[in-house]
Amino acid sequence: MKEVLERIARIKPLDTEAMERARTRQGQLTKPAGSLGLLEDIAVQIAGITQRPLPSVERKAVIVMAGDHGVTSEGVSAYPAAVTPQMVYNFLQGGAAINALARYVGVRVIVVDVGVAADIQHPGLLSRKVAFGTANMAMGPAMTHAQMLEAIQVGMYILDAQVDEGIDLVAIGDMGIGNTTASSAITAALLQTPVALVTGYGTGISDEQRAHKIRVIERALERNAPDPHDPLDVLMKVGGLEIAGLVGVIVAGASHRIPIVIDGFISGAAALIAVTLNPTIGAYLLAGHASVERGHSLILDRLGLSPLLDLRLRLGEGTGAVLAMGLIDAALHTHAEMATFEEAGVSERKEDE
Amino acid sequence: MKEVLERIARIKPLDTEAMERARTRQGQLTKPAGSLGLLEDIAVQIAGITQRPLPSVERKAVIVMAGDHGVTSEGVSAYPAAVTPQMVYNFLQGGAAINALARYVGVRVIVVDVGVAADIQHPGLLSRKVAFGTANMAMGPAMTHAQMLEAIQVGMYILDAQVDEGIDLVAIGDMGIGNTTASSAITAALLQTPVALVTGYGTGISDEQRAHKIRVIERALERNAPDPHDPLDVLMKVGGLEIAGLVGVIVAGASHRIPIVIDGFISGAAALIAVTLNPTIGAYLLAGHASVERGHSLILDRLGLSPLLDLRLRLGEGTGAVLAMGLIDAALHTHAEMATFEEAGVSERKEDE
Repeated sequence: MKEVLERIARIKPLDTEAMERARTRQGQLTKPAGSLGLLEDIAVQIAGITQRPLPSVERKAVIVMAGDHGVTSEGVSAYPAAVTPQMVYNFLQGGAAINALARYVGVRVIVVDVGVAADIQHPGLLSRKVAFGTANMAMGPAMTHAQMLEAIQVGMYILDAQVDEGIDLVAIGDMGIGNTTASSAITAALLQTPVALVTGYGTGISDEQRAHKIRVIERALERNAPDPHDPLDVLMKVGGLEIAGLVGVIVAGASHRIPIVIDGFISGAAALIAVTLNPTIGAYLLAGHASVERGHSLILDRLGLSPLLDLRLRLGEGTGAVLAMGLIDAALHTHAEMATFEEAGVSERKEDE
Repeated sequence: MKEVLERIARIKPLDTEAMERARTRQGQLTKPAGSLGLLEDIAVQIAGITQRPLPSVERKAVIVMAGDHGVTSEGVSAYPAAVTPQMVYNFLQGGAAINALARYVGVRVIVVDVGVAADIQHPGLLSRKVAFGTANMAMGPAMTHAQMLEAIQVGMYILDAQVDEGIDLVAIGDMGIGNTTASSAITAALLQTPVALVTGYGTGISDEQRAHKIRVIERALERNAPDPHDPLDVLMKVGGLEIAGLVGVIVAGASHRIPIVIDGFISGAAALIAVTLNPTIGAYLLAGHASVERGHSLILDRLGLSPLLDLRLRLGEGTGAVLAMGLIDAALHTHAEMATFEEAGVSERKEDE
């Protein structure tokens, strides 16, 4: 516990001098000031994160945390829980959407079993199983305190190892049948909003099934009564092992000054926990995309993040985040490679305003 | 004239059988149906355009048309007209935003002088100058009928040559100080909306300068009285040579069944002209992004296009379109490379709904 809390507390603000230098350079590049919109903001933010006015993100990875959810026994998902390990194998064989996108963008896929409810053996898998899925949160806490801490540490240590290998940019993704249920519960608890406002259709349930899912989440919140001012209490009682793992990745990323691209609703819920633990962490995050899943936009509003993409994705796995990594990399290429007005001999504005 | 009109008339609808096969495949891939949102729609649309259920877009180019505008003498832009040739040289030397982005995404940049008001010599330039800029549309027609036709043909023949080289996907971009003024005039005329609704801040003018720009456009529309039911009349009277060139690229792209990615307001105005000439052309277009420039969203609404990106760009050059090309390519990679449920041994939904 102490180690986790210490790392959370130790995170430093962005480097405003590096940001100022990046902003000055943006004003000198051959384009009307501000005309590259969010691409300019990305360059300035990553300068502040990395303390480099001309940052680059050559080495990129997406960390996909997989875990199962006891609450699936309540019938909250359109898919059976068996799909979690099946999809993990699909990731490891390169057949999932995240694999195709990561290959295209040039991102390494790191697949972590932090809590799948099945035995998975594969040389490509990081086996860090804390438990065979969470307990059913409709009946009691999803995790023990020790399990939650262990899952957070799994995420921290995996990110630490990536830093040793020279990673520049990290995305986070998830796999776990039932994990929109946990994410809705986390979001409702931390934002103190009605469950219906933050509960969507997950992998594609009916209106009737969604009404049932809302009742299950309401029951879980009543039964466990998580403290809305204690994000770790919320995580332990109504979260998931993969969500705890992603919290660890985020905390460690910010502590190493690595920009972290969050994906959709599940990684958003992890970000909400991390930023509630320490608001300074928010400056290290980029929102890859706006998920269709309701609840996600409420999280982004709370975190003050503008999504880079809005492609009506609702798949998870890190898909939206990895696509956004391409935009982030492109933004830094314009920042580094464009000629200045002086270099190109291009006239500046007719007047100062 | 006859050749241009014949090519416009000859464009065929999308291939619904190829689209159906692509849609069927999307339903078999290891993800909940529809969960890849617009990426799925892109794959289906490009299947219909190319008549291939498994299309790919390996060879990509952005055609950047440059031209000057006589209306700049009315003081409608924040930059002097001299910036047009200066930026063309910047494109040719690889120092502009479009160069950095195109290098990153893997897109060839084709720079065309169709009407720059300066002599430009560079081995990398396609010199197809129709005139040294347009005439001032506030005083009379921007072009003669012959100039407009010649500029459209410039675009057609350049695209034809690209098809001979095996191009799979084309983006269009623009450079021309004053060309948001022409685009606002075209949009106001064709959509029959008040000029103020479709006139923005261009490269960054003040509120006062914008009010002046609106008055200049109103004067041009009054003086020239373009026929809103005759897009070529609108183009000739209040358009631009680079906009006419882009109309030619779009028409030729659709005639060769090549998907065309439009960029911001200027290429949007060209698309509006092309689609008004023949509505079938609309199915061949993808909207790269939503420009900050007001008027652009009205065009996209009329064309029924959903922008792939909304990064608050307002640079032109093809920047938003080239970034979107990366998303389009990524979409086709998921479509082609993902495993099916059967191949991956992943369970499908628990029930049919």
